[in-house]
Amino acid sequence: MSDLRPPAPPRRHLLSIRGLERDDVERVLETARALAGSLDREVKKLPTLRGRTVVNLFYESSTRTLTSFELAAKRLSADTMSVRSAGSSVDKGESLKDTALTLSAYDPDVIVVRHPSIGAPELVARNTAAHVVNAGDGKHQHPTQALLDLHTMREALGRLEGLHVAIVGDVRHSRVARSLVQALDLVGARALVVGPPTLLPRGIEALGCAVSTDIRAIADADVVYVLRMQAERMGSGEAYVPSLREYASSYGIGPERVRRGQVVMHPGPMNRGVEIDPRVADSGAALVTDQVRAGLVVRMAVLYDLLTVAAVREPVHAELA
Amino acid sequence: MSDLRPPAPPRRHLLSIRGLERDDVERVLETARALAGSLDREVKKLPTLRGRTVVNLFYESSTRTLTSFELAAKRLSADTMSVRSAGSSVDKGESLKDTALTLSAYDPDVIVVRHPSIGAPELVARNTAAHVVNAGDGKHQHPTQALLDLHTMREALGRLEGLHVAIVGDVRHSRVARSLVQALDLVGARALVVGPPTLLPRGIEALGCAVSTDIRAIADADVVYVLRMQAERMGSGEAYVPSLREYASSYGIGPERVRRGQVVMHPGPMNRGVEIDPRVADSGAALVTDQVRAGLVVRMAVLYDLLTVAAVREPVHAELA
Amino acid sequence: MSDLRPPAPPRRHLLSIRGLERDDVERVLETARALAGSLDREVKKLPTLRGRTVVNLFYESSTRTLTSFELAAKRLSADTMSVRSAGSSVDKGESLKDTALTLSAYDPDVIVVRHPSIGAPELVARNTAAHVVNAGDGKHQHPTQALLDLHTMREALGRLEGLHVAIVGDVRHSRVARSLVQALDLVGARALVVGPPTLLPRGIEALGCAVSTDIRAIADADVVYVLRMQAERMGSGEAYVPSLREYASSYGIGPERVRRGQVVMHPGPMNRGVEIDPRVADSGAALVTDQVRAGLVVRMAVLYDLLTVAAVREPVHAELA
Repeated sequence: MSDLRPPAPPRRHLLSIRGLERDDVERVLETARALAGSLDREVKKLPTLRGRTVVNLFYESSTRTLTSFELAAKRLSADTMSVRSAGSSVDKGESLKDTALTLSAYDPDVIVVRHPSIGAPELVARNTAAHVVNAGDGKHQHPTQALLDLHTMREALGRLEGLHVAIVGDVRHSRVARSLVQALDLVGARALVVGPPTLLPRGIEALGCAVSTDIRAIADADVVYVLRMQAERMGSGEAYVPSLREYASSYGIGPERVRRGQVVMHPGPMNRGVEIDPRVADSGAALVTDQVRAGLVVRMAVLYDLLTVAAVREPVHAELA
Repeated sequence: MSDLRPPAPPRRHLLSIRGLERDDVERVLETARALAGSLDREVKKLPTLRGRTVVNLFYESSTRTLTSFELAAKRLSADTMSVRSAGSSVDKGESLKDTALTLSAYDPDVIVVRHPSIGAPELVARNTAAHVVNAGDGKHQHPTQALLDLHTMREALGRLEGLHVAIVGDVRHSRVARSLVQALDLVGARALVVGPPTLLPRGIEALGCAVSTDIRAIADADVVYVLRMQAERMGSGEAYVPSLREYASSYGIGPERVRRGQVVMHPGPMNRGVEIDPRVADSGAALVTDQVRAGLVVRMAVLYDLLTVAAVREPVHAELA
Repeated sequence: MSDLRPPAPPRRHLLSIRGLERDDVERVLETARALAGSLDREVKKLPTLRGRTVVNLFYESSTRTLTSFELAAKRLSADTMSVRSAGSSVDKGESLKDTALTLSAYDPDVIVVRHPSIGAPELVARNTAAHVVNAGDGKHQHPTQALLDLHTMREALGRLEGLHVAIVGDVRHSRVARSLVQALDLVGARALVVGPPTLLPRGIEALGCAVSTDIRAIADADVVYVLRMQAERMGSGEAYVPSLREYASSYGIGPERVRRGQVVMHPGPMNRGVEIDPRVADSGAALVTDQVRAGLVVRMAVLYDLLTVAAVREPVHAELA
């Protein structure tokens, strides 16, 4: 983020890690770091996006992601409006396209979309003049989660290049895993996915990672990234693992599986006692709270980047001074 | 809105089109036009209502109307508070009167009410010192919808006087139709309602409109205003039309029914393929997105009008300059 | 609140009336009175908490309490974020502790907690650096309700010391009753609880009140405080009273039971015709609306007190001048 570097080309949307270049990631992470500094002050509000409007369009429930985006927008002095599927015309069967057109008529600056269907954010993006941010679509992508995970790793370990990250658990249903593998690949880190064969999708290597079904393979990693095990995947017809108890014993991350010097991450909400042992979750090795805090500054950085990078920019640290 | 005209008398509430005079409508539409100009600026926020509080009391789900009022209030720098029936003491069986008294104790400036029962906004108005805006009560009235429709027509067609508007579909259950017919009558436009006999309420002519069951009657209209067909009206005991398919064929607005030069409007959310063909909804003749945008500026204008018209006023365009 | 008195020691949380000293109560009530004066102005917003963040974490539905806290925070220019159990990761089974840790990572200044389980706010307080306010936990405590009731009594009757307050109805399930009895004891007022034996918990005297099952005992009171009868307590296996009708006749507060000079209070929402007769609820003796208004200023005062009392303080009336 040197004064001499010409501004990067504008990115109208953040739909997928796939659409980013390494420079984009670096720029967002630099901005996040500068913003993190500004949040140490007593008054945490910046006037940067005053008068701008951020709409959160959420078709899935989420505490972390929605509150994180809402607060990110408010800390930058933007107005926010949150539209959820419950209690909205979604209930009346309005198509996503029409909802996008409706919201766009208000000229929002950014629409943040979470949706159970893959590609929903892109559909919104095709029907709006606003910048669109994908806050999770089906099992496809969750790019701001990947960016906040990179930020967390870099702040905790001092680097990303060459870092070795083991991602453990239900990779099959995880948009977090997909986005993170791509993001690690982009910044020169090394990803390994580990889990029972039923939870490792065929062909996952193509995203740029190694694969193992042996939990002992995590021993070499700098970061053990634990995925959430979704209870609704257990039992009944669609049983991917025999029981939560057996899963916890085979792939759950307890103290005996964490090597000194390793850090442990989890995107939350955690199932304590299933994929992660409370003794690990509450230990100094866990960066879970750091990730939540990173979520705020990285989402501020993404909003800032989308709304200001098109113009010739002053470096963010000058503006924050 | 000439400088020389004395200010109109204060209107404490907006409960029904019936309570308005033509001057009131003209004044709100002029204000909306001035506000629309101001929204073209990069920063869309006006300080006009800073420190004022707008409460949205919604007993029915609605994306468009609620977000439109919330955003209208925020763009004028008012604080907003939205109370919905789900997750509120409404669930505990509190009477509407007591809810009105409770909210009024906070001294809000405006209470916006949507309720399934006819007359609910008037009941609130009798129990508060705030200005009350009816955002839809049962099948009775939806006055801000009618005002935004007038604004949309005037901006698209250059006039209201003498305009010919065909309103098509489920007139029986439509508060939109009732308010719009009255509003058109007030400004000197001509309304025709068209639909199957089961969906045309007896005595509707008394509101000031012509009536036809022949869809071909829309050919002479300048505006084809398509009403939402509510799926819950179909089938079962309360069947007003045999099937959605048959309704679409008899009264749905497809390209073959729209004459060159006609514009098409719909209050949303649209049932594409039922009352409106997607080829019409997505054509240049459709003003649906204009209506949504008009909803924002007209609701800003209504809030502005209620809160400022009692005092001696500067013309709004001076204040916005 | 004299200039010469040294500032009281900081209270990081407001979890229970039990944790307060009389000086704390006096200080909050003085602040509330000063704030009430400021709300008479046309623009009701104070810049006091600009840039601060108040999170409302509500696991139970509530119009009054949630809107009251939201508005209190906004009137002091704080940012607010409301997290409810519906539509949040609570639905995904996240533990309260993890939700507390997650929210805390955003560095909020205050977390307001309502929860059906006793002790939930304390659990949150042990896992956050924010100030925590108990907005009702199970049938345990509701301290801001007790404080607003004291404020209402003092403004209406001119004093608290020596006041005689009869609390009537379902004391068993009422956190309001528990907090209020303790608060009255703290400020030197006298509490009497009255109700059918089934609704008076054994050992309630220990909180510092007299007890009677005879409704005529309220005749001597200055204040008749009517508790909400919860319909879900009637009938079925857990029947505490034979019927609502019989309860209304035995313990409902009708005009014949209110002596001239007595005032009547109710925490809302009221069951008109059950525990309170509409003729009483709508009479000049009823302070119900005063209580709601008091809720706003007392919650502003609590937020103000938590966030500013640690520093050497100017008296609030100077700041508000």
